[in-house]
Amino acid sequence: MITALAGGVGAARFLRGLVQVVDPSDVTVVVNTADDDWFHGLFVSPDLDSVTYTLAGAQNPETGWGLAGETFAAIEALSRYGEDTWFRLGDRDLATHLFRTRLLRDGATLSEATARITAAWGLAPRLLPMTDDRVATRIETPGGELAMQEWFVRERCEPEVVGVRFDGADASSPAPGVLDAIANADTLLVCPSNPVISIGPILAVPGIRDALVARRDRVVGVSPIIAGRPVKGPADRLMGPMGIDVSCVGVAREYRSFCSALVIDTGDAAHAGEIEALGVRAVVADTLMTDARVAAALARDTLAAVA
Amino acid sequence: MITALAGGVGAARFLRGLVQVVDPSDVTVVVNTADDDWFHGLFVSPDLDSVTYTLAGAQNPETGWGLAGETFAAIEALSRYGEDTWFRLGDRDLATHLFRTRLLRDGATLSEATARITAAWGLAPRLLPMTDDRVATRIETPGGELAMQEWFVRERCEPEVVGVRFDGADASSPAPGVLDAIANADTLLVCPSNPVISIGPILAVPGIRDALVARRDRVVGVSPIIAGRPVKGPADRLMGPMGIDVSCVGVAREYRSFCSALVIDTGDAAHAGEIEALGVRAVVADTLMTDARVAAALARDTLAAVA
Repeated sequence: MITALAGGVGAARFLRGLVQVVDPSDVTVVVNTADDDWFHGLFVSPDLDSVTYTLAGAQNPETGWGLAGETFAAIEALSRYGEDTWFRLGDRDLATHLFRTRLLRDGATLSEATARITAAWGLAPRLLPMTDDRVATRIETPGGELAMQEWFVRERCEPEVVGVRFDGADASSPAPGVLDAIANADTLLVCPSNPVISIGPILAVPGIRDALVARRDRVVGVSPIIAGRPVKGPADRLMGPMGIDVSCVGVAREYRSFCSALVIDTGDAAHAGEIEALGVRAVVADTLMTDARVAAALARDTLAAVA
Repeated sequence: MITALAGGVGAARFLRGLVQVVDPSDVTVVVNTADDDWFHGLFVSPDLDSVTYTLAGAQNPETGWGLAGETFAAIEALSRYGEDTWFRLGDRDLATHLFRTRLLRDGATLSEATARITAAWGLAPRLLPMTDDRVATRIETPGGELAMQEWFVRERCEPEVVGVRFDGADASSPAPGVLDAIANADTLLVCPSNPVISIGPILAVPGIRDALVARRDRVVGVSPIIAGRPVKGPADRLMGPMGIDVSCVGVAREYRSFCSALVIDTGDAAHAGEIEALGVRAVVADTLMTDARVAAALARDTLAAVA
């Protein structure tokens, strides 16, 4: 049994590789939900959907999020009503948000809604939201606090980040199955996701970090930072302000309490010694997932790190 | 000032003619809302939308409802989740339902939401829902009771109708402005709509029928029945079971308490005497609105009936 902690696009690509090299039904994915937000009365779970669509092979191959061949008629029509339309929900994607929101309003938990959605897509891996409670990443900037998607999408990560907090995390509980999936896994993976806003919120749910620490010898991470830069996304804009060096070494320092090994890119091999000095085994691999074959090889190397 | 009672497609076509022959800003339309229902967590108001889209010139010219050039990507995607998709909401139409539902959930009344929607479409006439309360047409069939859209759309009007009731009507109140619009209008029009399920629910809102009766000499109806048949829609399937003769005479008998005149089709001119015998002035005109020019002429003839 394998349990992975996942954010959005990078994690989704990694997991697509993983399910090529292990039995997909042996995989449980604990997904960040602190990017979730309400748009036009619909509850949107960007990371759950990115992982779902990617594992189903239905994702937009260019963006990594959203559905392939998507249209945007509804969101464009919403602009007539003066609605903010910077969060570009596709027409087919809307079906997911409509279905999930209806289930939630009818009293289902996010876990239950996620199980229905992933079943509809025929996914063999089990996807669990990190929590069924509402946790929301808030980005503190000199001009005030922004919701995650406001900073990330609307403001295109431009406002300087002076702090990040996970609203609601203190009062949240892990979703059903999360702690068991961590306790009982043979191998635990921290996908190549943003350490601050993708993995950070999962660790902020009381109980999850401790559960990982208890399994440290079975936990391996994959650095999302290659040669001092994120492959995609705003990790560099967030790690510095949070006191994390924007490098695989910074990631190792952040994860060392619960990761016994970290997979770093071949381009960062020179840093292996610094990582080992932190008490974390450094495994060098090709981490730039340019295609599914590379992702599968990376998954194999990652699993081998704690085999 | 002109106030019109309206259902869906027939009324919308008539009103499009009306606003060609009078100042559109002098027109108030009181719209049936008993066909409203929830689909996929969204509140859908079919008649309000048909009238809005038609007055905006944006309606689908073939169906009379929905938007021209519409796509159906979202509703088709909902079928993946096992959702009933017989009620075909278009992608651009969804924007209206998303916007309205958000406003309602935020505490707006249907009147307020309607004012926002019609303003967004630049409509000069004022559209008022008959009530801000929830009234729902229920169709009684030998197999049990159906919601209006279940009988009309899903079952294609096939189940025999043994009764019709307007759930919630007794406890409802006219929406703000409705009674004033009736009391203060120079002319009152009953659009060519289904007497049972379009005009019937409006009359079932306590206070509205009495207000019309008090203005009877200024109220003129347009028969939706031509030569014993509705132009479109299921009026014939509903009038009989409700004890209404499926003819312009049956309409006259139904409306005589509050209509002093009824416009009937040239093809029904032979019935004029029967209608006059009921104390209702019969006005013969071309009521088959094949194009906007015919609709405008019909509106002119209708206004003249009580001038």
